[in-house]
Amino acid sequence: NCQAPDEGNMHTLLHWATPEQAEKYLRPLCEGKAWSCFAMTEPEVAGSDPTLIQTRAYPDGDEWVINGHKWFISNAHRAHFAILVCRTEDDPDIPQAANSAFIIDLPHEGWTEVRQIETMHGSTGHSEILIEDLRVHNDQMLGGRGQGHLLGQYRLGPARLAHCMRWIAQAETALDMMVDRSLNRFSHGSLLAEKQGIQWMIADSAMELYQAKLMVLHAAHKIDRGDDFKSEVSMAKHFVANMVNRVIDRSIQVHGALGYSTDTPLAHMFQHARWARFADGADEVHQMRIAQRTIAAYTDEGTTRRATGNLPI
Amino acid sequence: NCQAPDEGNMHTLLHWATPEQAEKYLRPLCEGKAWSCFAMTEPEVAGSDPTLIQTRAYPDGDEWVINGHKWFISNAHRAHFAILVCRTEDDPDIPQAANSAFIIDLPHEGWTEVRQIETMHGSTGHSEILIEDLRVHNDQMLGGRGQGHLLGQYRLGPARLAHCMRWIAQAETALDMMVDRSLNRFSHGSLLAEKQGIQWMIADSAMELYQAKLMVLHAAHKIDRGDDFKSEVSMAKHFVANMVNRVIDRSIQVHGALGYSTDTPLAHMFQHARWARFADGADEVHQMRIAQRTIAAYTDEGTTRRATGNLPI
Amino acid sequence: NCQAPDEGNMHTLLHWATPEQAEKYLRPLCEGKAWSCFAMTEPEVAGSDPTLIQTRAYPDGDEWVINGHKWFISNAHRAHFAILVCRTEDDPDIPQAANSAFIIDLPHEGWTEVRQIETMHGSTGHSEILIEDLRVHNDQMLGGRGQGHLLGQYRLGPARLAHCMRWIAQAETALDMMVDRSLNRFSHGSLLAEKQGIQWMIADSAMELYQAKLMVLHAAHKIDRGDDFKSEVSMAKHFVANMVNRVIDRSIQVHGALGYSTDTPLAHMFQHARWARFADGADEVHQMRIAQRTIAAYTDEGTTRRATGNLPI
Amino acid sequence: NCQAPDEGNMHTLLHWATPEQAEKYLRPLCEGKAWSCFAMTEPEVAGSDPTLIQTRAYPDGDEWVINGHKWFISNAHRAHFAILVCRTEDDPDIPQAANSAFIIDLPHEGWTEVRQIETMHGSTGHSEILIEDLRVHNDQMLGGRGQGHLLGQYRLGPARLAHCMRWIAQAETALDMMVDRSLNRFSHGSLLAEKQGIQWMIADSAMELYQAKLMVLHAAHKIDRGDDFKSEVSMAKHFVANMVNRVIDRSIQVHGALGYSTDTPLAHMFQHARWARFADGADEVHQMRIAQRTIAAYTDEGTTRRATGNLPI
Ligand SMILES: Cc1cc2nc3c(=O)[nH]c(=O)nc-3n(C[C@H](O)[C@H](O)[C@H](O)COP(=O)(O)OP(=O)(O)OC[C@H]3O[C@@H](n4cnc5c(N)ncnc54)[C@H](O)[C@@H]3O)c2cc1C
Ligand SMILES: Cc1cc2nc3c(=O)[nH]c(=O)nc-3n(C[C@H](O)[C@H](O)[C@H](O)COP(=O)(O)OP(=O)(O)OC[C@H]3O[C@@H](n4cnc5c(N)ncnc54)[C@H](O)[C@@H]3O)c2cc1C
Ligand SMILES: Cc1cc2nc3c(=O)[nH]c(=O)nc-3n(C[C@H](O)[C@H](O)[C@H](O)COP(=O)(O)OP(=O)(O)OC[C@H]3O[C@@H](n4cnc5c(N)ncnc54)[C@H](O)[C@@H]3O)c2cc1C
Ligand SMILES: Cc1cc2nc3c(=O)[nH]c(=O)nc-3n(C[C@H](O)[C@H](O)[C@H](O)COP(=O)(O)OP(=O)(O)OC[C@H]3O[C@@H](n4cnc5c(N)ncnc54)[C@H](O)[C@@H]3O)c2cc1C
Repeated sequence: NCQAPDEGNMHTLLHWATPEQAEKYLRPLCEGKAWSCFAMTEPEVAGSDPTLIQTRAYPDGDEWVINGHKWFISNAHRAHFAILVCRTEDDPDIPQAANSAFIIDLPHEGWTEVRQIETMHGSTGHSEILIEDLRVHNDQMLGGRGQGHLLGQYRLGPARLAHCMRWIAQAETALDMMVDRSLNRFSHGSLLAEKQGIQWMIADSAMELYQAKLMVLHAAHKIDRGDDFKSEVSMAKHFVANMVNRVIDRSIQVHGALGYSTDTPLAHMFQHARWARFADGADEVHQMRIAQRTIAAYTDEGTTRRATGNLPI
Repeated sequence: NCQAPDEGNMHTLLHWATPEQAEKYLRPLCEGKAWSCFAMTEPEVAGSDPTLIQTRAYPDGDEWVINGHKWFISNAHRAHFAILVCRTEDDPDIPQAANSAFIIDLPHEGWTEVRQIETMHGSTGHSEILIEDLRVHNDQMLGGRGQGHLLGQYRLGPARLAHCMRWIAQAETALDMMVDRSLNRFSHGSLLAEKQGIQWMIADSAMELYQAKLMVLHAAHKIDRGDDFKSEVSMAKHFVANMVNRVIDRSIQVHGALGYSTDTPLAHMFQHARWARFADGADEVHQMRIAQRTIAAYTDEGTTRRATGNLPI
Repeated sequence: NCQAPDEGNMHTLLHWATPEQAEKYLRPLCEGKAWSCFAMTEPEVAGSDPTLIQTRAYPDGDEWVINGHKWFISNAHRAHFAILVCRTEDDPDIPQAANSAFIIDLPHEGWTEVRQIETMHGSTGHSEILIEDLRVHNDQMLGGRGQGHLLGQYRLGPARLAHCMRWIAQAETALDMMVDRSLNRFSHGSLLAEKQGIQWMIADSAMELYQAKLMVLHAAHKIDRGDDFKSEVSMAKHFVANMVNRVIDRSIQVHGALGYSTDTPLAHMFQHARWARFADGADEVHQMRIAQRTIAAYTDEGTTRRATGNLPI
Repeated sequence: NCQAPDEGNMHTLLHWATPEQAEKYLRPLCEGKAWSCFAMTEPEVAGSDPTLIQTRAYPDGDEWVINGHKWFISNAHRAHFAILVCRTEDDPDIPQAANSAFIIDLPHEGWTEVRQIETMHGSTGHSEILIEDLRVHNDQMLGGRGQGHLLGQYRLGPARLAHCMRWIAQAETALDMMVDRSLNRFSHGSLLAEKQGIQWMIADSAMELYQAKLMVLHAAHKIDRGDDFKSEVSMAKHFVANMVNRVIDRSIQVHGALGYSTDTPLAHMFQHARWARFADGADEVHQMRIAQRTIAAYTDEGTTRRATGNLPI
């Protein structure tokens, strides 16, 4: 099971779960016997900024009582448990320390699925959830109080690269199809493959796919070595998310009406790819972070090198 | 009834129909009593290059016998008649003079709807049609022999501008929504409307929408005055088709998950807008024509001015 | 004499000068008997934000005593007078009301040319000026106290369009040359003009030049009619400044080494065009203003139409 | 001595020179005792397509007699010898086998420097050369008859990467300066570094620089391992040449008038960077080759993977 959000949840549990939690939740997940979901985003506030989370947990004896509203919770429909992020601290030292995470067994009293949200690619299991007086025992807290943000950050490194690999596969398929079509479609005196207008699309796609692969391999290498990988993962996620949209778009263009029909997988790939640019860190949030890290590198060291991969060149 | 393809068919009939044809087909169309379709594109050959059309009409006494295969014929499902373009000339003087158009009453023997094609925006009435030994009387020819290409060209001026106006309306809605959202969504310390990253999207969209409007008004002015409008319509169609895709895309980006859901009209607008860039003249075909006209202007007159709107500046 | 900055100064004097000032300064300028300069920008603070101006004028009886530092003052070397913008108000109601303008006869005690600044296009008369205890009579104030900003704004409408027209002429020359070269250079089996890679550059350039012309004509029309033209001039300036850079760049690309040499005018055109994107309102400042006006239009009227040319479409 | 064209000539001689030639020409070059030039490009025909070379060598006994016209020959002014590429074969098997290379001692009878060509970055030693009845002994041929093209190809791998490294250094300097300026310039209420409009430029630059470094390191790795590197070097050269132009351009934008002046090195960097996009393989020629290799990969193997770095992902 290497699908989102289960795959990200595994990383999260591996890192943060107590032995008991791991036994109960991580093992069945890895064995493919359970499904899970991750519930953070809320319709009322910007998902891009988790310090704004309004779902609220109050302690009550050994328990917490939770009220709130979540949406776009993938997999919630079939999940056996949820990792739920909510605000527990009134007045944290830093805004990033207000949230905590809980593991919620599903179904659960106080957890109601309002609907599965209909999207551009149909309705494939992203739910809107109402949380009303949901009670959960202290033991179900995942990580410590105020560590909800950190936990979210941590999961995103490997999970984002996993997304990147899926997107690279999509882009490769789209490029293969683009080349294939261009070798078989004739228009205005020559094959599409012989026209520079089409060649430019092929060349741009090949080069961007090449760059995407180098970036993902390098970021994975950093994760493997235990180096700080935030910069590299951020750049990889941001670039690959945009690259896959461009390559699929070009492939559709080369296919004309056929690419717009569902006779090829391109149309569905197009509809799916769109969310890559605002979920798991919107383009704009990555741009902001990349800039901040570049500025910090310069301020710390008088050169931006640390922020461009810290490479021996 | 100002919808495609009826609106384009009206222009075509107005210009090319005999008085009898006009009475029988144009009048009910204008009165909103009939629907029509336009059947040119074929799956086997590039729709971008009508000289490749393979649907074949052979004369047989007073009649023509037609065989072929068409697809993406909008409205065919409910149409009372079709304008059908097929090859009638074996060995035309110029490749552009091989095709002729016929008016086909629907339903009609030899005209079979294979399916309604499923697309990125669902299945909303673009049909695949098999044409087998369809017989049609000489009187049903629209325009003269070999004039099928010319007729296609002619319809495309006003029809393309009509498309542009629909796209401008879409883009305007998307921009209004983008601004509205940016005034109501708060993230990382300020409203989206206060961040330059979002302002740039608003400004780019406003400027492109402004340019689109100027281009369409100018091209319409040329059509009204009876000037040659090919260049201007080509540039307008090409630019507006791309502009509307960009503006809707930006609006979705600013809306995040909400924009990806069908809770706003943006998702459907996005799925519809995509075809604008390859139908009614693919981007690449317009680019090619704009270049050719620019080169011709220079060759004829020693300056490219004629190809940039022929304006007093 | 329709060159910057004289042309802008004429507009400014026409609007703000007293009859005596007009007689003394505007008349000789129009008759081509005098040259002038406009001194606003300072090295120490962002020229993009005139509220930061540090050159300071203090009243002393009938006179003002001015100290400060200016640079990039075009034409200062040969000018008979300068319009000098400096801070006169300590504590204005709004930050935009701190500056006033003075007419300074040149040469003048206290006005020292430090050097002519060397730039990317050589040293063609943009001076660095030191202003030390320069004394000027009250009568030399142009416009009222605190109106320096307004005066700057006013001059920029027509002056920016005048720049646009020069840039359009440059772009047209560059496009003509691009087409000419592409018709005479052969590479890898065909003329450059026959390759879509080159055709795309021609087509993009033609379309952008067309848009530039429409924008400038429309903005000029607004100025002529006395309508509010700020939005339109801003968009025109911003777009045309970028367009001319792109078109010249493409033309150089098509010329290869020849375009990089000074055997054609393209190299110098390239070096000149670069400043268009940050002077007379940097790209970013225009983007910010266009966004603000679009947001304001929406806030006032529930639609952005006013900000996209206020056109009947 | 790691400067172009000496550095490329060293690679070429190392690979193609006879022991005698190596002793005479390569050794002093490496020891920094001699300078060299490489003479291929001609004003009359596209340098992008070496099959068009018109400079002609005819055999005459033990000697060759050469006539022709070259330009943009860097270093010719001070070179002790030239590697001269000219046509020797009338009717080669393939068009790529028409040229041969000769080593010409300089000065030499029949070799006349017409001028040093003035360019966008001044006149820094690119010469126009007239070749009239220049006689050279058979022993001076470098490589075999008809191998001039191959030799040109071979030199370009490492030499192009060497260029890339220089450009990366330029881009890094430009980015460092951009960040520095943004931390010290205040406009419209905040530091430039705090505005997303500027942050986007920093982030884009950092990401592109990161990609450039990954590409160059990977291509160098391929060369080191003796793998086929044509694809990777082509993509690296093409991307890095464009990247350096964009990054310098953005840095100038952030510096405003200061960036346009020669008070910082940015202006000169800008004027130099421009040639990178058409020399050593114009953008368009690389695009064409990348496309062709991508298509070939697909045709050979049913997937484009080989053309996107052949990476384990
Ligand atoms: C298919 C899909 C599956 C999902 N699955 C899950 C899930 O399982 N669990 C879960 O919790 N969530 C899930 N999400 C939600 C996702 O995490 C959020 O959409 C994402 O975090 C963005 O939040 P938002 O939609 O509220 O957009 P917002 O935060 O409102 O952002 C909207 C836009 O505002 C702009 N913006 C925001 N901040 C800034 C800034 N600082 N500077 C400049 N611009 C900015 C950006 O353009 C951004 O795209 C899913 C979403 C999708 C589409
Ligand atoms: C929603 C919708 C409604 C439609 N309605 C109708 C209808 O009512 N009646 C009808 O007859 N048709 C209709 N069509 C079909 C439409 O007209 C064709 O899709 C269009 O003409 C393009 O033809 P094609 O799809 O065969 O693409 P192709 O001609 O195969 O072109 C595919 C791509 O090839 C490239 N290309 C083609 N030629 C060149 C060139 N010279 N240089 C460079 N690149 C080139 C372009 O990238 C192009 O996008 C409809 C299509 C859609 C999507
Ligand atoms: C050839 C030439 C002739 C000139 N002639 C004259 C003249 O005759 N008289 C005169 O007074 N001046 C003249 N100038 C100066 C010109 O007006 C200034 O260069 C211009 O106003 C920009 O100011 P600056 O150079 O200080 O750049 P800054 O104001 O420091 O701006 C630098 C960059 O910062 C960024 N920036 C600034 N503000 C913002 C913002 N709010 N948001 C986002 N980014 C921002 C932009 O990228 C901008 O390009 C001339 C300049 C040139 C190049
Ligand atoms: C600073 C500098 C130093 C140089 N040093 C040397 C040197 O030392 N020795 C030497 O021999 N040469 C040298 N050159 C020349 C350089 O190698 C040539 O400029 C280069 O090969 C391009 O040739 P060209 O200038 O004739 O352009 P062309 O070949 O005429 O190409 C011009 C443009 O045409 C287009 N084009 C060409 N072919 C195609 C195609 N197939 N498809 C699409 N578009 C195409 C491209 O846009 C290209 O930029 C130098 C050049 C410069 C600027």
